[in-house]
Amino acid sequence: MQNKLKYLLTGSPLPSQMMAEKQLNKIRALAAFSPDALSSLAYANQEIFLGLVIAGSAGLSLQFPIALAITLLLGVVALSYAQTIRGYPMGGGSYTVARENLGMLPGLTAGGALLLDYILTAAVSLTAGVAAIASAFPELWPYRIWIALGLLVVITVINLRGLRESGTSMAVPVYLFLISFIGMLLYGLIKAAIQGTPTPLAAVAPPASTALGLFLVMHAFSAGCTALTGVEAISNGVTAFRSPAWVNARKTLIIMAVLMGFLFLGSMGLTQFFGVVAGPDETILSALARRLVGGGPLYYLVQFSTLAVLAVAANTSFAGFPRVTAILAEDKFMPRQLFNVGDRLVFHNGILLLSALTAVLIIAFNGNSHALVPLFAVGAFTAFTLSQAGMVLHWVRLKEPGWLVKAFINGLGALVTGVTLFVIGISKFLEGAWISVLVIPALVILFLTIRKHYQGVSVQLSMHGLPPSLRHFPRPRVVIPVSSIHRGMVDAVNFARSISDRVTAVFIDVDPGPDEVGIRRQWDKWFPDVEFVVVESPYRSLVEPLLSFLEQTDDEHNDGQQAVLILPELIPASSWHEILHNQSAEEIKKALLFQRRQSGLQRIIIDVPYHLKR
Amino acid sequence: MQNKLKYLLTGSPLPSQMMAEKQLNKIRALAAFSPDALSSLAYANQEIFLGLVIAGSAGLSLQFPIALAITLLLGVVALSYAQTIRGYPMGGGSYTVARENLGMLPGLTAGGALLLDYILTAAVSLTAGVAAIASAFPELWPYRIWIALGLLVVITVINLRGLRESGTSMAVPVYLFLISFIGMLLYGLIKAAIQGTPTPLAAVAPPASTALGLFLVMHAFSAGCTALTGVEAISNGVTAFRSPAWVNARKTLIIMAVLMGFLFLGSMGLTQFFGVVAGPDETILSALARRLVGGGPLYYLVQFSTLAVLAVAANTSFAGFPRVTAILAEDKFMPRQLFNVGDRLVFHNGILLLSALTAVLIIAFNGNSHALVPLFAVGAFTAFTLSQAGMVLHWVRLKEPGWLVKAFINGLGALVTGVTLFVIGISKFLEGAWISVLVIPALVILFLTIRKHYQGVSVQLSMHGLPPSLRHFPRPRVVIPVSSIHRGMVDAVNFARSISDRVTAVFIDVDPGPDEVGIRRQWDKWFPDVEFVVVESPYRSLVEPLLSFLEQTDDEHNDGQQAVLILPELIPASSWHEILHNQSAEEIKKALLFQRRQSGLQRIIIDVPYHLKR
Repeated sequence: MQNKLKYLLTGSPLPSQMMAEKQLNKIRALAAFSPDALSSLAYANQEIFLGLVIAGSAGLSLQFPIALAITLLLGVVALSYAQTIRGYPMGGGSYTVARENLGMLPGLTAGGALLLDYILTAAVSLTAGVAAIASAFPELWPYRIWIALGLLVVITVINLRGLRESGTSMAVPVYLFLISFIGMLLYGLIKAAIQGTPTPLAAVAPPASTALGLFLVMHAFSAGCTALTGVEAISNGVTAFRSPAWVNARKTLIIMAVLMGFLFLGSMGLTQFFGVVAGPDETILSALARRLVGGGPLYYLVQFSTLAVLAVAANTSFAGFPRVTAILAEDKFMPRQLFNVGDRLVFHNGILLLSALTAVLIIAFNGNSHALVPLFAVGAFTAFTLSQAGMVLHWVRLKEPGWLVKAFINGLGALVTGVTLFVIGISKFLEGAWISVLVIPALVILFLTIRKHYQGVSVQLSMHGLPPSLRHFPRPRVVIPVSSIHRGMVDAVNFARSISDRVTAVFIDVDPGPDEVGIRRQWDKWFPDVEFVVVESPYRSLVEPLLSFLEQTDDEHNDGQQAVLILPELIPASSWHEILHNQSAEEIKKALLFQRRQSGLQRIIIDVPYHLKR
Repeated sequence: MQNKLKYLLTGSPLPSQMMAEKQLNKIRALAAFSPDALSSLAYANQEIFLGLVIAGSAGLSLQFPIALAITLLLGVVALSYAQTIRGYPMGGGSYTVARENLGMLPGLTAGGALLLDYILTAAVSLTAGVAAIASAFPELWPYRIWIALGLLVVITVINLRGLRESGTSMAVPVYLFLISFIGMLLYGLIKAAIQGTPTPLAAVAPPASTALGLFLVMHAFSAGCTALTGVEAISNGVTAFRSPAWVNARKTLIIMAVLMGFLFLGSMGLTQFFGVVAGPDETILSALARRLVGGGPLYYLVQFSTLAVLAVAANTSFAGFPRVTAILAEDKFMPRQLFNVGDRLVFHNGILLLSALTAVLIIAFNGNSHALVPLFAVGAFTAFTLSQAGMVLHWVRLKEPGWLVKAFINGLGALVTGVTLFVIGISKFLEGAWISVLVIPALVILFLTIRKHYQGVSVQLSMHGLPPSLRHFPRPRVVIPVSSIHRGMVDAVNFARSISDRVTAVFIDVDPGPDEVGIRRQWDKWFPDVEFVVVESPYRSLVEPLLSFLEQTDDEHNDGQQAVLILPELIPASSWHEILHNQSAEEIKKALLFQRRQSGLQRIIIDVPYHLKR
């Protein structure tokens, strides 16, 4: 039943040999790796607008200059990652690059930052996507948490099924987004050329509530830096490209960066040129689209394609996060279940973990992408900086021809992303960046603690130095707790007889009275060869008197053996019936487990089921 | 740890011999049994007011006449229960009386009605108590659900501790309530005598929104009948009185009925006389108190004592409900866990069940006693009617001196409560009585289904006709699943050797590769006498290949035996560590349990724990 339901949702299991990866051509690869980067536009523009509008027209006049600065930063980072692709053609995730070149702690820091970044990408993309569609249909605003969670469930299920067709099905929304946005921007540029002079901002901007200062500019710049998130995606997945893989990957990266730059600069420039301003229930991109193409079907097309590309971007986290947790789990920094490959050849535990954490973020931040963004950039730029710095050392170590140029480019990347990280950390600290600043080291500590635990366990379990033991062991002593004489007891006693000749039945008397005599008479009738002991339980507990009895018999026999417990267990015909039966067997097992923890006792338990047919 | 926390809340366990009941004198008995009945006032008045006020002054002029009719009904019911006390001096709950005299189905109907009644008493008393205190402090209205749930938690914990001192601690709020209310009413009567003529209702009543009609009157009457709930309490607890128990119990019942009548008629009469009207955020009793004693400390005293007596009334459900579920469980109509006596000599499962159901009602009905009341009267009057009807047959069967009078009184009781039940059912049906009308038969069906299950199980488990089996059983065949060679495996293999000479180790290969060869070499080094089998798992599952292997070996051996499974299980040093380990042993056990359900296979599982120290 449970399995059927599961297979209905996720599809039936796939055999291991289907694991081999499909290789993608550039068109498909762009669709597979770019959504996260391209869609960043949807929240970066919004954040810059919100950061500047409070300073009125003076603030809004800085939109294009800030966009220009961020586009330059994008250029440096893209060049830098082009080097990473060359240096790590087998896939150079930030964790791998940082760990190999800078050592364990920087590697784990990059890993933690990366995990945080993936979770935030999913949460920010979904909430920003919902904001895009709610800008078109304002009646959806009150339901935005539910819509975001609904999309999250759909994406989770799709990923649990395993996204074998990643290139094809993803390509539709990505190219739809590209065509509709590029078309809109070109149309806007023509309109701007016809208009000639920009709309004066003083006429449209709301009155300034704050003076324009350095902090405000830094703040808007930091917020806009989220435009760069996702640019590293291609460097993680070089192996998915057709050969020559690294050449194609690098070309795709350049195409992607150019597209990002055009979309970002174009949309920011037109927003400023036309003096577009958005109200509280609309995104700035939606206001721009409304201004350029009016409120007709083209507008709705733009909003839907924004939602679609953001949903696909959230989906890329579901490819990346489980892969990173699996790598960390393989290195024993995370629970080993995250390395298990599920029925559908995906890291299902990683997918479920990401889904749960994303849901927590969406709910905790009330479905508001603006509140999530300050946490976002810290993780992304930490990973950028560490990975670029690692690349510098990589080139310096290898010293292959042209290493100086390569090291310089990566060094420049590390420097500008590092400085940006510092600016973000300062200017966004109180708004939420502090959360990321706390979470990343906490994750590193968690990773180290987990590995220490696994190392401790592996020492404890090592067979090293153990002599081979071949002597035959004496047959065990056996104790059977008895509640009443029933058919299930027959199986238990018979099994006891088959493995031991020292069997004791123990009846825990919770309700002193004539019961005891009757049950002893019955026992002696059915099982005359098995000793029957009655233990009083003045406090009506089954478990404690049984445990003390076991210890007592062990003490009395003093033969170096621990009595083995045989539990006759009734299995109800359906799980609904379980509520109608005392769960004594379960209770005893749990108590023994607990006691084992306390005292180190390792008592063997034999479960003899008796299956009820109705 | 878990136990310590539990004992901190509920106190340490008590031995069984403390079970004997304390006997109460009349003063304490009144305090123990009357709160439910006396406090009914708090919601009955409110319901009559709300039912009539919509018909304006014409409606409000019927307050006193309706109160008079209900008081007469109270007289009949009290007399009738005085007969029950005589007939069932060992305690005559509605379930017992109806089952003994009318048969199983009426008995179960009364039992179901009683359970529903207890849950609703708890929910209505708590929400009405919170309404009383929120009338005095209007700022508490928004938090009324939380306050009601908080009180519920306190009452639950007190009852889980076991209320050994029921008479004493309960007496304070009950007598406080009696004194403050009787005092207030006497003062009001003097005031009324001075004023002479009643305040004209036309001057104070809000305009009528409905015409006064028969249905409206029936409706208000039905709602007011909740004043009678709790009147049966003494008849359930005759044994708690000092001897001659039934005489004292009967006297206490009469005193209680007189007090109820005085409080109810007095408060309703004064409300009408002074033309008291309440707004939406105040109860009518609060408005009356404000009118009579002003807004000073006396007013707050009255409101606090109302809350206190209502909390105590909710508490009486916690004495009654677990007792009825225990009786039903003993008769196999409810899960047997409800008959277990806990550490503190209380039926803790019944208490927890009542608490959970009450919380559900409070939340589902938004902490609004007015919405709960329509469900309430149906249960109470069903139990009344069935129990009185049962008493008629009781007297007719016994034919002791004076039986005709006794049968007549109970017959009258049955008749008037039956008619009232009908009126309530009709007039309150759409407002919520339909829920009770559905729930009571559903409970009866549940009771019968549960008993049928237990009877089926007891037939299946009966030793009847089984031949005594004394032959020695052959030693079992044993299979050990292997994940890797570690110290825990040594214990498992040694135990296997001690009970069997046919041991097979099986390695489920989820990841084909060089693993297999390495592990086989290690195995042969450490356990050369134990056969080692590798099973491929193309779908990476541990469980299914293991289960098929077990079935296959059973088929091959064809010796009428089922292989026994030995599971080496690592026990992490703390439960926090469990998340870091694959729960394979648990998974295998669950799958076997599930498979057993499907196929009737009853495979014995031996759990060999290995205890990690850190």
